[in-house]
Amino acid sequence: MQLYFSPLACSMATRISLYEAEAQARYVEVDPDTKHLPNGDDYRAISPLGLVPALQLDDGSVLTESAAILQYVADRFPGAGLVPTSPLERTRLQQWLSFIGTELHKALFVPLLGDKTPPGAREYALEKGGSKLALLDTHLADRQFLLGRFSVADAYLFTVLTWSMATPVDLKQYPALSAYQVRLRGRPSIARALAEESLLYAQAQARRRKSA
Amino acid sequence: MQLYFSPLACSMATRISLYEAEAQARYVEVDPDTKHLPNGDDYRAISPLGLVPALQLDDGSVLTESAAILQYVADRFPGAGLVPTSPLERTRLQQWLSFIGTELHKALFVPLLGDKTPPGAREYALEKGGSKLALLDTHLADRQFLLGRFSVADAYLFTVLTWSMATPVDLKQYPALSAYQVRLRGRPSIARALAEESLLYAQAQARRRKSA
Repeated sequence: MQLYFSPLACSMATRISLYEAEAQARYVEVDPDTKHLPNGDDYRAISPLGLVPALQLDDGSVLTESAAILQYVADRFPGAGLVPTSPLERTRLQQWLSFIGTELHKALFVPLLGDKTPPGAREYALEKGGSKLALLDTHLADRQFLLGRFSVADAYLFTVLTWSMATPVDLKQYPALSAYQVRLRGRPSIARALAEESLLYAQAQARRRKSA
Repeated sequence: MQLYFSPLACSMATRISLYEAEAQARYVEVDPDTKHLPNGDDYRAISPLGLVPALQLDDGSVLTESAAILQYVADRFPGAGLVPTSPLERTRLQQWLSFIGTELHKALFVPLLGDKTPPGAREYALEKGGSKLALLDTHLADRQFLLGRFSVADAYLFTVLTWSMATPVDLKQYPALSAYQVRLRGRPSIARALAEESLLYAQAQARRRKSA
């Protein structure tokens, strides 16, 4: 099993989940600008849109889309308890994965993080995102995790919230969400993934400056 | 079971799936502007963000997010065969649901359809969307459906493609995708849902003009 990732991108959620499951995996870095792999190959031969994550299985097949990959990892390593076993709770997990993927990842953070985002679109995303963050804040006010225990949806939400520091999103306005972020940062799988990917991110930035 | 919908919104995918499953359900229209129900109640008491679809179960619990609701309907009516039974194919289904929800619904069509979308954001969405539609076109070149047979992912994709007629997205540039749309329009569940919701949409527009 091989995870194609870019440092601190949404692929970090899959890394966290693999660490939670103590799964054996290789991690292959994708340059988000050139779409090249460390060996010079074009990543688009693996995943046509060039987006991370992609998870390549041992038979060579390639999975894409965080919501699908995270559930695959959770189901493949059931001992880690990364998805609820009750059908209705599984539906709730899918609900959160979809909410994080559509409302936070795509609608809020992609426009805020993109360096080609047109004028006005940032403010628009920020304005629309407020009610989504408020909903999460209310949900987490009396909960440790999105569901009854840590799940792949928390791995995804934590990863996406990490991006707020590079945007005008002020998590301090959402006390329960801020407390959740701080709490999860202390979880070993998350602390390890965040430390490793922060270092890789800094190294990639240094390479970019050198070649500019 | 009760589906909260707005005519021709993404909730149509759930209606199509319920028709495929020959499921008993009530359909409650939500005014997308006022968020009011036909009886005057505020829909946000059911679903706080006011987004459709929401599926209310007989025990009163409310499901949101198309990707979750569609899988719930498919699993509740297994005889309709709306999801693949093999685990890897189920992952592929989740991959398509996520792709449609994030790349097409949120990133491409929401900016194109929104009347408050800032200048520049439409063109940006359109430009970024091209590679996503091209990927689908390639995938469908030698296939009838996204997976081996009709699934809830097709119900969702068909619904989203319907919106292209109100946007500058020109599906004729994608011959396999255009042929897929025409083919699916002939499917009884889809023909029925599209006819009913088109009528409701026209009636809602007429009410809006009258009250303006």
